[in-house]
Amino acid sequence: MQANTLTAQSQVHINLAERSYAIHISRGILGDPASYQGLPQASCALIVSNTTVAPLYAAQLQAALKPHFPKILLVTLPDGEVYKNWQTLQLIFDVLLENACDRKTVLFALGGGVVGDMTGFAAASYMRGVPFVQVPTTLLAQVDSSVGGKTAINHPLGKNMIGAFYQPLRVLCDLDVLKTLPPRELSAGLAEIIKYGPIADMEFFAWIETNLDALLAGDAAALAHAIRRSCEIKAWVVGQDERESGLRAILNFGHTFGHAIESGLGYGEWLHGEGVGCGMVMAAHLSERLGLIDMALVERITRLSERAGLPVRGPVLDPVDNAGRYLELMQVDKKAEAGEIRFVLIDKPGSAVMRAVPEAMVRSVIDACCA
Amino acid sequence: MQANTLTAQSQVHINLAERSYAIHISRGILGDPASYQGLPQASCALIVSNTTVAPLYAAQLQAALKPHFPKILLVTLPDGEVYKNWQTLQLIFDVLLENACDRKTVLFALGGGVVGDMTGFAAASYMRGVPFVQVPTTLLAQVDSSVGGKTAINHPLGKNMIGAFYQPLRVLCDLDVLKTLPPRELSAGLAEIIKYGPIADMEFFAWIETNLDALLAGDAAALAHAIRRSCEIKAWVVGQDERESGLRAILNFGHTFGHAIESGLGYGEWLHGEGVGCGMVMAAHLSERLGLIDMALVERITRLSERAGLPVRGPVLDPVDNAGRYLELMQVDKKAEAGEIRFVLIDKPGSAVMRAVPEAMVRSVIDACCA
Repeated sequence: MQANTLTAQSQVHINLAERSYAIHISRGILGDPASYQGLPQASCALIVSNTTVAPLYAAQLQAALKPHFPKILLVTLPDGEVYKNWQTLQLIFDVLLENACDRKTVLFALGGGVVGDMTGFAAASYMRGVPFVQVPTTLLAQVDSSVGGKTAINHPLGKNMIGAFYQPLRVLCDLDVLKTLPPRELSAGLAEIIKYGPIADMEFFAWIETNLDALLAGDAAALAHAIRRSCEIKAWVVGQDERESGLRAILNFGHTFGHAIESGLGYGEWLHGEGVGCGMVMAAHLSERLGLIDMALVERITRLSERAGLPVRGPVLDPVDNAGRYLELMQVDKKAEAGEIRFVLIDKPGSAVMRAVPEAMVRSVIDACCA
Repeated sequence: MQANTLTAQSQVHINLAERSYAIHISRGILGDPASYQGLPQASCALIVSNTTVAPLYAAQLQAALKPHFPKILLVTLPDGEVYKNWQTLQLIFDVLLENACDRKTVLFALGGGVVGDMTGFAAASYMRGVPFVQVPTTLLAQVDSSVGGKTAINHPLGKNMIGAFYQPLRVLCDLDVLKTLPPRELSAGLAEIIKYGPIADMEFFAWIETNLDALLAGDAAALAHAIRRSCEIKAWVVGQDERESGLRAILNFGHTFGHAIESGLGYGEWLHGEGVGCGMVMAAHLSERLGLIDMALVERITRLSERAGLPVRGPVLDPVDNAGRYLELMQVDKKAEAGEIRFVLIDKPGSAVMRAVPEAMVRSVIDACCA
């Protein structure tokens, strides 16, 4: 399938019984009042954004919400993963309570993954739950936070350790906003898109290989297809396992190594998508060592990630015992159960599996994959 | 029905599809290992308690859990509503993360309503949800926190403003622990029990009138009946409206005034049940002013509350404009929607209704009911 045969407009329906919602993927929808029709009646809307995104898009969103809500508040959070903590979350609650916002208030997450995660958790917790709408402004947030209902903040001892499963009312992926996205962030988003190939759909992987230049150039039709297909795959997985008891864990392909990198370097040093991109390459190597896939696939994944502008070699987190440091960081990861480290691996091309891996093999892969 | 015809052992089943659970009401169950059979397998259990309750019962609970969990942790929080905040909640997350507790960890709330609310919210949020068991040690917590799945912490600008609906796996109401309960706390618990009379069951109200002395004396059979009946009524209401969109609001009878009193005096000055007891008398007066009930019922409620050791006159929160201060405090209550104050009132004896009340009438009742 070629990008030029695609349409730049589509919708993915997320089926979760009474918590079902639609993801709208199109150009110019952020600033279109029609995008916000049919939301619950409320006297108040609160836009949560950050210092980078608010100057670019908050006024547009405010104008589009004006026909629907009598009062529209804005809270602008500091930008960055380091601020994804309780102190920043409090800023949202402060604004809500200072303005006596009731439990019908609708929250709008205008920003990337951090804004989405914090707004979602604030919505899940404020008065034990108010509705919220996602308006993701990064490619990563459009493909990743759009589906799954995961919301969270970080704790000093671990990433995303405090949060809730909470579904948005609607997700609006405006393709135009990706034009203002720095190239490094576009690459980070592509990591989560590429991820779906080896774990779920090798045909999609081949399509990305063919259309990567169009995606990197910001071609709307190509982006729309990549976002829609990623959301569809994620929705299919999440639909079968909303609360991550089993299958859903495969979405964490690349994340175990990725989280160790992010946390070991200090959050914010590498983008989340960069950690995932590199972690995916490491997890592919682990799959190859176990004899699940051949080196040709490892190389295809590595080459595509490199072309997408992603780091493919892990950073050295400890010059004395680098593998030991990685292992230590992976112990506190949520996927560590009963002290055992389990990895999401490629079972065969287009299919994933959870496996406990011998520590010696993990060490050897870390040694081989770090710069 | 007389207290001496009752049994001191019973069970209430809370029907919430896959989140159903049982409330066990009996003597000596806290320290009995059999009480904890059938809980999910986990490598770690965390008991959350406070500085008052832990010295009395933590060792007993630890011993009873020992056959079931390889590792049993304890975190002892400072005691009191003023500590029901994010800072204290962090202490729970700190212990969980410092001990690398995974998402199968079972939390045990050993204490009153504050411990239950905080443990429940910690369980709802830790890794986006781990299982928890309630072991309420106050009468109020046994009848109130046992049913409904409401968990929360306070915000400087409002009580219970940040929380989640989250159900326990099991609730153990040990009647023996009520023996160490200070009389003032027993009275506070009776407020929530008395409450069910005028809003749901006048026969139960008459039973309390007859058996109040037995209840105050700590008679196990009488307490078991009062707890069971209260839980049954609450379960019936909550079962129809788990997320408080309508009917469930009737459980807040007395709470709108009560919260204003608690918050106006500063949390901890009056016990929650004392605020509710007094608020119930004020709400009864409001119902009478609207012609819904006659003064004889208002007097029965007042007399029973007084006999139960509850305050029946509201405190003066502002010597200049007391009613104004009450009204101001009630605006930020969660039941305030779109700036309008709605009250739960007695529609007719044994039946409740939500009504918006003219401000002048509310002022007049506050003036009449405050010391």
